[in-house]
Amino acid sequence: MKLITFEFDGIVAAGYIDGGDAVVCAEGDEAHRAVLDVISGGEAALATWRKGSARRVPLGGIRFLAPIPAPLRDVFCVGKNYYAHAAEFHSSGFDSSAKEQVPSHPVIFTKATTSVCGPGDIVKGSLDPTNSVDYEGELGVVIGKRCFQVSREAAYDHVFGYVALNDVTSRELQKKHNQWVIGKGIDTFCPIGPWIATADEVGDVTELELCTEINGEMRQRAKVSDLIFDIPTLIETMSRTMTLLPGDIIATGTPVGVGIGFKPPKYLSAGDTMRVSITGLGTLENTIG
Amino acid sequence: MKLITFEFDGIVAAGYIDGGDAVVCAEGDEAHRAVLDVISGGEAALATWRKGSARRVPLGGIRFLAPIPAPLRDVFCVGKNYYAHAAEFHSSGFDSSAKEQVPSHPVIFTKATTSVCGPGDIVKGSLDPTNSVDYEGELGVVIGKRCFQVSREAAYDHVFGYVALNDVTSRELQKKHNQWVIGKGIDTFCPIGPWIATADEVGDVTELELCTEINGEMRQRAKVSDLIFDIPTLIETMSRTMTLLPGDIIATGTPVGVGIGFKPPKYLSAGDTMRVSITGLGTLENTIG
Repeated sequence: MKLITFEFDGIVAAGYIDGGDAVVCAEGDEAHRAVLDVISGGEAALATWRKGSARRVPLGGIRFLAPIPAPLRDVFCVGKNYYAHAAEFHSSGFDSSAKEQVPSHPVIFTKATTSVCGPGDIVKGSLDPTNSVDYEGELGVVIGKRCFQVSREAAYDHVFGYVALNDVTSRELQKKHNQWVIGKGIDTFCPIGPWIATADEVGDVTELELCTEINGEMRQRAKVSDLIFDIPTLIETMSRTMTLLPGDIIATGTPVGVGIGFKPPKYLSAGDTMRVSITGLGTLENTIG
Repeated sequence: MKLITFEFDGIVAAGYIDGGDAVVCAEGDEAHRAVLDVISGGEAALATWRKGSARRVPLGGIRFLAPIPAPLRDVFCVGKNYYAHAAEFHSSGFDSSAKEQVPSHPVIFTKATTSVCGPGDIVKGSLDPTNSVDYEGELGVVIGKRCFQVSREAAYDHVFGYVALNDVTSRELQKKHNQWVIGKGIDTFCPIGPWIATADEVGDVTELELCTEINGEMRQRAKVSDLIFDIPTLIETMSRTMTLLPGDIIATGTPVGVGIGFKPPKYLSAGDTMRVSITGLGTLENTIG
């Protein structure tokens, strides 16, 4: 099942994709929270959606929003979680926060809720006074059940689904402020979407391939199986001390090929288009403004 | 005005302190969100509270909860924001994220919403597998109005009020994970309270004095005027790129005197009592469990 939040005819709605249609399961005021609510509601809530509405809108007539437009709290993110990217970031001079190239423990930071935007939205690169905007195509894991001290073995039982995400970053602000909230949390710097695919639909998540293109040029291509800390390890590590909630999003890290991997760095400018595509999760396209 | 969320007779309620009483302005399901709602509602909402309820409960008969028990999103925090603490942290060997002793730019990180607890709650030190639990008494700023690109001069107009906060930290996890979300975001590691005092009641915030006692021994004592990056600078810097929301909490940093400032470090153990007191903001006491 592919869960979506969207606009059509000036209305905000939430529901799922069925063939070439968007099925409308919630609309109006409640639509902004509807995907979060269905995640919390679990299988029963999904079943209600499945047999509920008969109202359908052709996908061609909708505008996708972020599937969770107003997350419960800030988006958890993992830094330096692919070997080749850890090397390129380490040698770029922008990693102010670590002595070691490959982290011995997962590096976890957050992106502010106000950084979330949807497919097609303008990413406001002009907000970065340092002109060092960079892309990071990533797989997002959406938590389905409250997690506290969940083992690696039980981790996937707590995953609701997966989504494409772009951890857009101001490299200079990331570096100057040492901790990454400022460099990573800029308004509109967290595009998410177009849909959350449920775990049963995705199957073996490690087989998914992620690609990022900038203005049509392939920059990143990796399989989820290349993660240094895999999804069960991330959930085990984070939930050992910290309760994860239904609807929490964990951006799992970006592979090699970001702009600062080039010498000189290839930063993004107004008009540049970023496309993050993941097998089965669609394409997340945004333009820098 | 001192805003509170509390329990009495098995009911959750929200309201304010008047003399020796708690005035009940909301109760039941809505009470958890009531302080957040009154902050968003601004002066009109406060006025409604003031002239509303006649129901009063003696303060002796209530249990304080965190004034905002379920924050809108993760708590923003500032690292290394008093000179003498920046020096003690830098020389402790636990600061994995910076080359410089005194930061040139504010170091901003977050504490998870699930780390928030209230006065009197047990802080679950046993969750830290590394046994390196440390206290950090801090002044919290509560944002009152949406802030985007707010100048230093206009910053205080956007502050709703102030609250005492304890940024409890696992030092080993803070160090090992480089970014601080794991070491800082442990469940119950963010006691807040007992009340939010509105800015008009506080007056000149720079004159407030903060003290932290551990088992009755004074460890931290500082004035807010000693902050490296003052409150207007923090709001200007953060809101330059990131919209701050009514109800957002910014923990402004801790002064010298934390446990890792001693050689060897004085970590907290089960049964230890932490008391953070700030002029006009009451005393936040929690015991390690």
